[in-house]
Amino acid sequence: VGADIENLVNEGAILAARRSKKVVEQIDLEEAIERVIAGPERKSRLINEEEKRIIAYHEAGHAIVANSIPEADPVHKVSITSRGMAGGYTIMLPEEDRTLMSRKKLNADMVGLLGGRAAESIVFDDITSGASNDLERVTKMARAMVTRLGMSSELGPMVYGQKEELIFLGREISEQRDYSEDVAKQIDKEVRKIVSEAYEHAVSIIIEYRDKLDSVAQRLLEVETITRDEFEEIFPTPVPKNSGTPEPQTAMPQMA
Amino acid sequence: VGADIENLVNEGAILAARRSKKVVEQIDLEEAIERVIAGPERKSRLINEEEKRIIAYHEAGHAIVANSIPEADPVHKVSITSRGMAGGYTIMLPEEDRTLMSRKKLNADMVGLLGGRAAESIVFDDITSGASNDLERVTKMARAMVTRLGMSSELGPMVYGQKEELIFLGREISEQRDYSEDVAKQIDKEVRKIVSEAYEHAVSIIIEYRDKLDSVAQRLLEVETITRDEFEEIFPTPVPKNSGTPEPQTAMPQMA
Amino acid sequence: VGADIENLVNEGAILAARRSKKVVEQIDLEEAIERVIAGPERKSRLINEEEKRIIAYHEAGHAIVANSIPEADPVHKVSITSRGMAGGYTIMLPEEDRTLMSRKKLNADMVGLLGGRAAESIVFDDITSGASNDLERVTKMARAMVTRLGMSSELGPMVYGQKEELIFLGREISEQRDYSEDVAKQIDKEVRKIVSEAYEHAVSIIIEYRDKLDSVAQRLLEVETITRDEFEEIFPTPVPKNSGTPEPQTAMPQMA
Amino acid sequence: VGADIENLVNEGAILAARRSKKVVEQIDLEEAIERVIAGPERKSRLINEEEKRIIAYHEAGHAIVANSIPEADPVHKVSITSRGMAGGYTIMLPEEDRTLMSRKKLNADMVGLLGGRAAESIVFDDITSGASNDLERVTKMARAMVTRLGMSSELGPMVYGQKEELIFLGREISEQRDYSEDVAKQIDKEVRKIVSEAYEHAVSIIIEYRDKLDSVAQRLLEVETITRDEFEEIFPTPVPKNSGTPEPQTAMPQMA
Amino acid sequence: VGADIENLVNEGAILAARRSKKVVEQIDLEEAIERVIAGPERKSRLINEEEKRIIAYHEAGHAIVANSIPEADPVHKVSITSRGMAGGYTIMLPEEDRTLMSRKKLNADMVGLLGGRAAESIVFDDITSGASNDLERVTKMARAMVTRLGMSSELGPMVYGQKEELIFLGREISEQRDYSEDVAKQIDKEVRKIVSEAYEHAVSIIIEYRDKLDSVAQRLLEVETITRDEFEEIFPTPVPKNSGTPEPQTAMPQMA
Amino acid sequence: VGADIENLVNEGAILAARRSKKVVEQIDLEEAIERVIAGPERKSRLINEEEKRIIAYHEAGHAIVANSIPEADPVHKVSITSRGMAGGYTIMLPEEDRTLMSRKKLNADMVGLLGGRAAESIVFDDITSGASNDLERVTKMARAMVTRLGMSSELGPMVYGQKEELIFLGREISEQRDYSEDVAKQIDKEVRKIVSEAYEHAVSIIIEYRDKLDSVAQRLLEVETITRDEFEEIFPTPVPKNSGTPEPQTAMPQMA
Repeated sequence: VGADIENLVNEGAILAARRSKKVVEQIDLEEAIERVIAGPERKSRLINEEEKRIIAYHEAGHAIVANSIPEADPVHKVSITSRGMAGGYTIMLPEEDRTLMSRKKLNADMVGLLGGRAAESIVFDDITSGASNDLERVTKMARAMVTRLGMSSELGPMVYGQKEELIFLGREISEQRDYSEDVAKQIDKEVRKIVSEAYEHAVSIIIEYRDKLDSVAQRLLEVETITRDEFEEIFPTPVPKNSGTPEPQTAMPQMA
Repeated sequence: VGADIENLVNEGAILAARRSKKVVEQIDLEEAIERVIAGPERKSRLINEEEKRIIAYHEAGHAIVANSIPEADPVHKVSITSRGMAGGYTIMLPEEDRTLMSRKKLNADMVGLLGGRAAESIVFDDITSGASNDLERVTKMARAMVTRLGMSSELGPMVYGQKEELIFLGREISEQRDYSEDVAKQIDKEVRKIVSEAYEHAVSIIIEYRDKLDSVAQRLLEVETITRDEFEEIFPTPVPKNSGTPEPQTAMPQMA
Repeated sequence: VGADIENLVNEGAILAARRSKKVVEQIDLEEAIERVIAGPERKSRLINEEEKRIIAYHEAGHAIVANSIPEADPVHKVSITSRGMAGGYTIMLPEEDRTLMSRKKLNADMVGLLGGRAAESIVFDDITSGASNDLERVTKMARAMVTRLGMSSELGPMVYGQKEELIFLGREISEQRDYSEDVAKQIDKEVRKIVSEAYEHAVSIIIEYRDKLDSVAQRLLEVETITRDEFEEIFPTPVPKNSGTPEPQTAMPQMA
Repeated sequence: VGADIENLVNEGAILAARRSKKVVEQIDLEEAIERVIAGPERKSRLINEEEKRIIAYHEAGHAIVANSIPEADPVHKVSITSRGMAGGYTIMLPEEDRTLMSRKKLNADMVGLLGGRAAESIVFDDITSGASNDLERVTKMARAMVTRLGMSSELGPMVYGQKEELIFLGREISEQRDYSEDVAKQIDKEVRKIVSEAYEHAVSIIIEYRDKLDSVAQRLLEVETITRDEFEEIFPTPVPKNSGTPEPQTAMPQMA
Repeated sequence: VGADIENLVNEGAILAARRSKKVVEQIDLEEAIERVIAGPERKSRLINEEEKRIIAYHEAGHAIVANSIPEADPVHKVSITSRGMAGGYTIMLPEEDRTLMSRKKLNADMVGLLGGRAAESIVFDDITSGASNDLERVTKMARAMVTRLGMSSELGPMVYGQKEELIFLGREISEQRDYSEDVAKQIDKEVRKIVSEAYEHAVSIIIEYRDKLDSVAQRLLEVETITRDEFEEIFPTPVPKNSGTPEPQTAMPQMA
Repeated sequence: VGADIENLVNEGAILAARRSKKVVEQIDLEEAIERVIAGPERKSRLINEEEKRIIAYHEAGHAIVANSIPEADPVHKVSITSRGMAGGYTIMLPEEDRTLMSRKKLNADMVGLLGGRAAESIVFDDITSGASNDLERVTKMARAMVTRLGMSSELGPMVYGQKEELIFLGREISEQRDYSEDVAKQIDKEVRKIVSEAYEHAVSIIIEYRDKLDSVAQRLLEVETITRDEFEEIFPTPVPKNSGTPEPQTAMPQMA
């Protein structure tokens, strides 16, 4: 359940990995990246066959969904090898470093994160604890859109709650509520709506490409790890991909 | 009231016990496991006959209910020997280690946990403090399903509340509320519903197999401890058991 | 106002006293128990006659009520001798040690605890601060029934609030609220209902046995302390007593 | 504004003073008591004539009201000598030590405490900050009646809120709220009602004995301090006084 | 914006200054007082002409309003010299020391404090951050009247909230809320009403004496500082002044 | 996205820079100011072309909007050079130092701060995380207007919440709520209204001067940095500018 991985990837580990290229040149870079972002491989951890199948579908779900949304980053690798705390992982890498996140890009990432849970739900008619980290990240992103980035038209271009950076014997309180119960209710409603729409989007993609999902999951159970090339052979990107960085709606006039 | 035991079992003690197999090979493994998960036997603790009867029915309730639900783990041992703080204990062991918990498996475990209280209620027309640890665990599981695992369709695939890991002179605050009163009310309603349905399920099983419950309780009062074999002789599993790990709803296509 | 005493008795001091029997064999056991559970006798503390009368009726109230409820423990001693912080005390002793508390037993104990206040109210047409410890204990028991022991059908078989065991420079926070305002209101209503019914029960017993109450109070003013034998001579138990431990509703079948 | 004084008096300073009688035998006991309970006399503190008049009426108000309620303790001394932080003080002493406080006695004390503010209001058509300590004490007593002593029939014979005894670098938190908003509202309503009725009672007494109030205030401005004898000469107790300790409603039967 | 100054003045600096008279006899007392209560003069701080004009009107507003209310203390000095953090200051001195604050006096002081903001609003059709300290003090006074001094008939003669004096690494929490949301709403309403009425009073005085306001502000811009004599020459007190200490409504009878 | 810069500028860095003129005389002052207020230039930070375009429009948005409001400070420099954490920055400098902030000036500054987000929204049909610091500052200003500066007629000339200056191992709690839920709701409504009106104002300016926005953004992409002269050549101030300091509505009378 590659959530831990994606977490690290999106929060800068890739960047760190790239910057350390010169340092790591002599060793296998690919392994270095994964070690950095997913912890050491844990060959000793035995996961039974039934659970392997769920993990395979979960990771395949992330990959299939991400590959079907224009703004999501390309799938770099999908694996059901156990690394660190995760039973599997999916790595998505942007073509270029990014310093800004747009509303559309954030929505795309949330749909991708919910692809694992959506796949479980469609395939198994049950859902597991394996998505808990994905759900935490989706919730955090949706809350940030509404309360820190002014991306909900209901709540407007302002922030809600005061961020506190208290390092008090290891505790970090991330937010102090400074708004009324009414606003809290509006925030909850908006966050819930953003997450629900992302989940419905993920489910619809899983249903549309169910056969590809089965193929990727089956392949993962056979070979454990699929790279970008093999993944795109099984499931060629069905949409024109873009970086998720907004472009002007009209052509820019040239200055004399 | 084997709640403390079950608690430890489910939270990894079994795993720990298994991993330490090589270490404990020479001594009686069975005793080692129980010592690890339930504390030393307390022969000196005198419990009167009336209470022994309640404990016997309580433990028998756990065992009868767990044995009647497909996803619950097999009953390994039932005992009214006093160990640690518990007056008795019921050990359920999975056939294989587990890293994922599905919604159905969680529901099954909750029904099993409420089997003790359900048995007391049916047999004695009164209920005792002996179930308090069971209730704590059931509540914690139901809350986790709703707030951390996205398993309530009412609340959706997201998390509620921020987990805090503050080790502040021994205190651990498990959750910081970051939602409105309205959402708090919805959460309470969902959690209550999950627990109520599990309890009603437990009660219906107890009523259906009341004669087996009497038999197991009576046997416990005679011999104090019943192992899996003797338990299944008195009460053969009435349902096809499974591991509780979800399986695909349709056959998986084979890749070329 | 024997609340402090009863408090210690019910919370294990009796048990402690019993276990230390071997140790205390040579000295007067009866005095040892009372010294342990009620502090040293305070002959120097002068209480005026008007207050002595109130204390006598308060303690007699506890004794009369407890003696009229099947599940309440037998009255061992009633006294208006000042001990520790208490102006008087009533000791009720179970026939056997107890590790489980049933709903009926808890209700019985609450009625007994409210017997002091009920007696004051009926006899003096005023009430005093002497019952404050009784009220604290009754409230704590009723809350525990509803929030920790799943004994309210309104709130169901689950727990409310998270117990915290924080020893932080001497402070112990007993509970962290994790439920909505709506649930808080339901809890308050249930707790209030349990306490009110117990108080009304106590009042009805005081009214029914008012003559015995007068006799016991009068006797206390004459001799300061009444033992079980003398108490039962004045007021023979009007109900069949039982241990308060639930018994099966139907005969238990015998296993072959 | 003798609130600080009365505070100490009621909370045990008198008791302390009495117990230390043997110790202080050789010195002027009267002065010792006042020094203990009101701090050293502050001759240097200059209070202007306008304020002296307000203080005189405020203290006279306490004395007149207390002397007109059966359950209030007898007025021992009234003074407008500045002591400690107080501009004046009124000492009321019970005839005998007291360990129990009844509802009627508490109500009587609250009426006496509000006598100062009532006098200001009637005489000056304005009110001053001089009553702030009186108001704090009245509020604390009314809250205790409702939340700790079970003396409100609306809230019933139970306690509300958990007392905490936290000594954390000098802080003492007196109460942790453990009830719903609805109960908080009921408590506020009851407390407000108890205080309002006490204040209306105080005002009606001030109006009834306005001439005596003028006389006592005038005398205070002339001689600064009035003892019990002189006070009762100006204003003989208009009601039969009692100790405030409840008495049985009917004669007590004699045991054979 | 002499709020900081007034703050210190009212909270005891004047008193301190007076008591230290013997000590400071040899130096210029006037300068000593101002240095104590307003910090050292800051000649180096350059304030532009536009802002000087606003400050002049703000200070003149305090002085004009205070001089038009019977219970406000006489204006001792008005200045637009920058001292400490303040751009200007107005000193009002009572004729005699005061230990009691009446409701009328508190209302008078609040109107005076709001005179600065009222003047800005009338003269400039805009308002500035210069009044922030005035607003803080007015709010604190109005809240104290309602919650600590029992001066709101809506809330009655009692206190709301528990004052805490916690010195915890420099923090002082001034109040712990112990009342319901309903009472919080009533308190807010009363406080708001008291402040609004005071502000409307200030505005009406500014409108009535607009010509005097212009004269004083103009004079301040010319000479920077105006003493009591010059101020009263420009604007003779239009009302009979008093100390603000309540006087009896009727003549006091003489004792024989 | 020059929010960090503007932040420092408005909060006193400019002032600091000016005072240190004598110290820095020998070095390039312009560079010194920018180093002080925006951190060192970060040539090594590579930002891709798509993001550069968004940053250019964002900064141009600040500049165009600020230049179209009378009370906003003149645009001193606009740049898309990466400095510190910011991808670009816009410096606005007042003609003279300022110690007072009026309501109109605060509103003007908020419109300018929202110019970046407004430009993104109009040009790209998407919005980015680049405005988060702008939104934080706008929210803080609007809240201060309502709760600390008495600039909302709905909430009146008073403060809401108690500022706390607690330096507790690095934590600063900025406000303790002391008002009811009703007032919290009113505050939220007012703050939201102030921000919404400012944003709508910014959007309308961006739409009106869209061609100038394109020109400035294009020029920034060509030369990275534009100074005041070049900026005003492209977009001459379309409104009469003022300092934002209120002026009297009527001529001031002259004193004799």
